[in-house]
Amino acid sequence: MSDRSMILNLFFFNPQGDHRFSWRHPLSPTKEILTFGYYAKLVQAAEAAKFDAVFIADHVAVWDSVASGLRHYANARLEPITLLSALSAVTDHIGLMGTASTSYNDPFNISRYFASLDYISSGRASWNIVTSWLEEEASNFGLSGVARHGDRYLRADEFIHVVKRLWDSWEDDALSFDKPGGDFADPSKIHPIHHTGEHFRVRGPLNVPRPPQGYPVLAQAGSSEAGKNLAAAHADVHFCFISAVEEGLAYRADLNRRLVSKGREPGDLKIITGVLPVVLGNETEQERREQLEDSLTIDAVAIDLVSSYTRLDLTGLSPDGPLPALPDESEFDGIRTELALLKKYDPSLSIREIGRRLVKSSSTWLLIGTADQVARQLAELYESNAVDGYNLMFPFLPTDFENFVNGVVPLLQARGVFRNEYEPGTLRDRLGLKRPGNSFLL
Amino acid sequence: MSDRSMILNLFFFNPQGDHRFSWRHPLSPTKEILTFGYYAKLVQAAEAAKFDAVFIADHVAVWDSVASGLRHYANARLEPITLLSALSAVTDHIGLMGTASTSYNDPFNISRYFASLDYISSGRASWNIVTSWLEEEASNFGLSGVARHGDRYLRADEFIHVVKRLWDSWEDDALSFDKPGGDFADPSKIHPIHHTGEHFRVRGPLNVPRPPQGYPVLAQAGSSEAGKNLAAAHADVHFCFISAVEEGLAYRADLNRRLVSKGREPGDLKIITGVLPVVLGNETEQERREQLEDSLTIDAVAIDLVSSYTRLDLTGLSPDGPLPALPDESEFDGIRTELALLKKYDPSLSIREIGRRLVKSSSTWLLIGTADQVARQLAELYESNAVDGYNLMFPFLPTDFENFVNGVVPLLQARGVFRNEYEPGTLRDRLGLKRPGNSFLL
Repeated sequence: MSDRSMILNLFFFNPQGDHRFSWRHPLSPTKEILTFGYYAKLVQAAEAAKFDAVFIADHVAVWDSVASGLRHYANARLEPITLLSALSAVTDHIGLMGTASTSYNDPFNISRYFASLDYISSGRASWNIVTSWLEEEASNFGLSGVARHGDRYLRADEFIHVVKRLWDSWEDDALSFDKPGGDFADPSKIHPIHHTGEHFRVRGPLNVPRPPQGYPVLAQAGSSEAGKNLAAAHADVHFCFISAVEEGLAYRADLNRRLVSKGREPGDLKIITGVLPVVLGNETEQERREQLEDSLTIDAVAIDLVSSYTRLDLTGLSPDGPLPALPDESEFDGIRTELALLKKYDPSLSIREIGRRLVKSSSTWLLIGTADQVARQLAELYESNAVDGYNLMFPFLPTDFENFVNGVVPLLQARGVFRNEYEPGTLRDRLGLKRPGNSFLL
Repeated sequence: MSDRSMILNLFFFNPQGDHRFSWRHPLSPTKEILTFGYYAKLVQAAEAAKFDAVFIADHVAVWDSVASGLRHYANARLEPITLLSALSAVTDHIGLMGTASTSYNDPFNISRYFASLDYISSGRASWNIVTSWLEEEASNFGLSGVARHGDRYLRADEFIHVVKRLWDSWEDDALSFDKPGGDFADPSKIHPIHHTGEHFRVRGPLNVPRPPQGYPVLAQAGSSEAGKNLAAAHADVHFCFISAVEEGLAYRADLNRRLVSKGREPGDLKIITGVLPVVLGNETEQERREQLEDSLTIDAVAIDLVSSYTRLDLTGLSPDGPLPALPDESEFDGIRTELALLKKYDPSLSIREIGRRLVKSSSTWLLIGTADQVARQLAELYESNAVDGYNLMFPFLPTDFENFVNGVVPLLQARGVFRNEYEPGTLRDRLGLKRPGNSFLL
């Protein structure tokens, strides 16, 4: 194979899989989702398959503003930083990507958690930066509502700046360990950051030395204008939703322009797209699979999902009637990507039908077929240079994951687009990302 | 042995040991302090010796307000929550006690980290609650100075209340996992907490179910009036500094009165005292040990330590002259325990001599002797019921720890005051603590 490999991540938000009713699948875990063994086995299998990383999405609330949320939807989940830290101890190579919000944390703490995880894992830590859009989250942190979209991104920009400065606050060679001379460190290489901005005042330095990767890999999701600009300014990995070559090439060209305008180079930002991979034993299985997914779906949740994504109050409306007019995207404080998707739907669809579509795949590429078909489509999109790899959002865990590993990975390896073995080095090395210079030395 | 065992914890703040210059010891680790393997080996050895827990102290800053801090003192350390999470994956029994500050965190996040760690470790998590007194910490979180002592404790009380309510927000049997019926959970058993107080507004519920221990074990350090009252209101384990039977019995009686006044029972709070155990091969080694410790000490740090503990500016004063008048304890926002200790010193001591004493043992019991002598003194204080056990603050890691495990632990086991094997159950079970009831069901 070439010296490049596509990026393959095991993604999850629901520990039972990305289908909203994955918890109802006959083979899905139940109380095992609250045990470490479930995740250890899954991630060790992903490492055996040479995956780049496990990617854990997160919210800091339960989805309970709608009536169906608590009863029918899998709201219980472990916290990513603790879980990834534990996983680091039972793995050697796989990257550990975890979500933390810039809206509901302090930059000093986040900088320290990921620096510490980077040491514990010998350079495998990655922070997935989110600004958090869910109303339920704001009320767990003293706020009466989610901050405006633009304000969240301004805070995020300052937050990330502070986190990076703290990672830089110890130069790489600041530690002396000179026992006879009595010098533990060289004070001239340790820097308070003296940050004073709109949102934060942080003196520093951090109390963890500069991480092995310089900066843990910075991932960012969200394709709004503000999201793409944030990625171009700070991120190493951009998580988006692309399923076609031309769309992907245009998207990359757009991101490259933004990168250059921030003084960075095109290769500095890897593009990974979300995909729901479903590997069938043969083509006749598709109908059965669709019936299974349909049978798991609970309409009350589907309808509440429309309400949650549009921020429209749908109570009193017939679920079999049409949607009211959708809000304007530029004024929308929810997930703008999902709103844009909804606007593309056939306007004659009922609320219930829209909800059931959202349950199935939302804006994510549902890639269903035989192992050959799935491997070919993933390879072709990658070979076209539209994307650098995939966040694999298996609808049902562990079954869809196991089918993919057994069926698709060997085909990708045979085609030379996915590694056969891990190379030595950090996650950053593996992804082809530069180790960042220290901002105190520029 | 009886059905009780003394509590033995492997304590550390500096990963090289509790002596302030442990990093200079010829056998101390250097860059290994930034690798997981160093801690895994240490804590696995503590588990092999049947210790109750590893107890990680913490600050959220480096000690750099004094000139000597960065150069001569071991300021670099990993973060406790990430480190303990990783350690949970390579151990099966030992408790995982980690420090987190109520002054520089949000209760939702702390509640979630420790709930998640409690699941990952199958009921071994413990939160050591601190309010943080170091000036350097405040400036990393947007504050111009440390909050007043009393105010910190008022915030801590509310913080802990919110954390416990969040742990209670899912009743123990809230999860249904009813796949055919479509009920993931029973909404009537999941409670928003709707907390509105002086410091926090938190709606809840948590997005992690009630932890295996109900509440992870709550530890608290600090023997000020406010500290003892906070322990009596909330804590399961109180970490203090006692080295004599009468002192300990009086201390316990005082804490018991406070417990009763809070509606709790005397056995509800375990008392562990800090001790610096140094096991010598024979009595003639003591002088050599003292010479070693003296030779490691750097006077500049010793003098800065006096300044840090008294909050007095000592620049311009001769280090060989006396201390100026000490501040009044009731108005003091630093560590009141240390101030009280300093007031007991001979007033004719020079600043340098006081500093060198602080470096050696501060207010902690320095227990130096043969294995027989150390075991007998630990057993006697425990048998008198003055304390329930010990935070073992080994001056030099790993050597003092290894000497203790090889020499003292077998003697304590032979005497019947320390377990030979772990019993099944959670950390809470092992410590003889009740599983707390759910406040939503009272």
